Amino acid sequence: MKKIINDPKDVVGESVDGFGRAHADLVRVETDPLYVVRADAPIAGKVGLVSGGGSGHEPLHAGYVGFGMLDAAVPGAVFTSPTPDPILAATKAVDGGAGVLHIVKNYTGDVLNFETAAELAAADGIEVKAVVTNDDVAVKDSLYTAGRRGVGGTVIVEKIAGAAAERGDSLDEVAAIAERVNANARSMGLALTPCTVPHAGEPSFELADDEVEIGIGIHGEPGRERIKLEPADALVERLLDPILEDLPYASGDRVLLFVNGMGGTPLMELYIAYRHAAAVLDGRGIAVERDLVGNYITSLEMQGMSITLVKLDDEMIELWDAPVQTPSLRWGR
Amino acid sequence: MKKIINDPKDVVGESVDGFGRAHADLVRVETDPLYVVRADAPIAGKVGLVSGGGSGHEPLHAGYVGFGMLDAAVPGAVFTSPTPDPILAATKAVDGGAGVLHIVKNYTGDVLNFETAAELAAADGIEVKAVVTNDDVAVKDSLYTAGRRGVGGTVIVEKIAGAAAERGDSLDEVAAIAERVNANARSMGLALTPCTVPHAGEPSFELADDEVEIGIGIHGEPGRERIKLEPADALVERLLDPILEDLPYASGDRVLLFVNGMGGTPLMELYIAYRHAAAVLDGRGIAVERDLVGNYITSLEMQGMSITLVKLDDEMIELWDAPVQTPSLRWGR
Repeated sequence: MKKIINDPKDVVGESVDGFGRAHADLVRVETDPLYVVRADAPIAGKVGLVSGGGSGHEPLHAGYVGFGMLDAAVPGAVFTSPTPDPILAATKAVDGGAGVLHIVKNYTGDVLNFETAAELAAADGIEVKAVVTNDDVAVKDSLYTAGRRGVGGTVIVEKIAGAAAERGDSLDEVAAIAERVNANARSMGLALTPCTVPHAGEPSFELADDEVEIGIGIHGEPGRERIKLEPADALVERLLDPILEDLPYASGDRVLLFVNGMGGTPLMELYIAYRHAAAVLDGRGIAVERDLVGNYITSLEMQGMSITLVKLDDEMIELWDAPVQTPSLRWGR
Repeated sequence: MKKIINDPKDVVGESVDGFGRAHADLVRVETDPLYVVRADAPIAGKVGLVSGGGSGHEPLHAGYVGFGMLDAAVPGAVFTSPTPDPILAATKAVDGGAGVLHIVKNYTGDVLNFETAAELAAADGIEVKAVVTNDDVAVKDSLYTAGRRGVGGTVIVEKIAGAAAERGDSLDEVAAIAERVNANARSMGLALTPCTVPHAGEPSFELADDEVEIGIGIHGEPGRERIKLEPADALVERLLDPILEDLPYASGDRVLLFVNGMGGTPLMELYIAYRHAAAVLDGRGIAVERDLVGNYITSLEMQGMSITLVKLDDEMIELWDAPVQTPSLRWGR
């Protein structure tokens, strides 16, 4: 295992500490229990947004804490759900009296632990709602999931719901738009290489030099099939075709096209994939109104990519374009 | 070779095409010859900034084309300088009557080709000045260089000089501040893994499972020494100590600390490195006033990192903070 780390058991703590130092203008790091919170939280009268999950998917979620997106992020150990305790603490820290929305990727541990934290928060008089993202079309159930996994669509849910909260929407309204984004989002990923969880020390699976895992999960869990390496355009279609059929997306739709790197893939390759994905959509009469290209939800150093489509409406576009000021996504202010 | 590409000879053209489609709100791609230019260029009365060099270092340089940074970027083949022809075309395209500054990383091919383009532009009545960045302390000369290599400091030069041009500084003034940033910048990098140039198909060098190349260049060219893998904190000191001694940086200095990934390194590792670098500087009485952490000047899928320090003054801080709106660096507007 070759990584820029110290003791494997310290990777999350040290990384979050470095993150907090680097972005002290935007966020504050609490260590007992561990969570990341907006520097100006709680904001009176604003719905608070909390997300979290296992570490190793950076910049998700801590990189999206700030104006116009999340109020707090709760990092668990690598690929391991945070316990209810830090989720509860983060929920309390962002409660400005208007309630708190939990944005939870659909993994069994995350769902359970966020539910427990929500019950404890409710007992303390904080109104909590939860949106569970489940945009991955690759597999019905998985190693970590009953139902579909939450992947790239989560980033878009966090941005759009964050903008809704920032403009003053109520908890019901923010939850509704988060649900609407998730319902209109579909994703699928592939891996060229595995990744190594630091405390495991060995790659989580093996791929031959000419193999690609289609439908990979963000923890390296199996997808639909293992194929021989193909040209980029063919790989793009292997992801995009099942996505398009699933919602389905149709001629005349307006979409956000999100081409995401799994952590170890250079931007050059993501733009090559974006180019063909945009051309395929163009050919089907689907208008790419907004896009996002880069490493936004990753699996440590895994090489690979995922594609996410979100069918947009006018309100979603307005909220996507709204100002955001976080360590890893910022524009407009 | 496992990459998300089609024909290796098309990687630059397809990637730049995808980039142009994804960021059509900010940039325009010209293909004959190939360069990327601000959508609103030329801007009358503003000094134009042009950079470029071999591809494979994305987001450098095309990702920095936009308001407050570069007016154009000229991508060559992977790890190969662009020829004078596209540099000349980009120079003409951004000439708003106030002259053009070339920002050139110190590699023999880049320096020669930008010089030739500058002479041709001068013959056409365009005033051109050039700043050559050479911030890498690792080696005196290298495989591709007479003198020190231009690396991470280039990103900071482009941001600060771009802000100076945007506020209306003259060509002499923009050139002077670019020189001042370069003179106050020092960098050094390391690699955990090699990278593979697509048209070569094989890794550019080999590293054993427990080896690290200290002082690596951004094309995988050799550095100072090859060592056994060490903990992150020790690796940080192997880069930071020679940097600190070189300028030298001293107690009371204010700096920008830039921890850069080489393309394949997860953000988690970069924040672990940032954490210790910030602590070392703190221990020496050097104030980290600004920072940048992420993959900003890369070597394809190489795993590794570089550290850049820039000694700041009030004007440099003001220009760093000024609004910037490019595909890969944006804030404040």
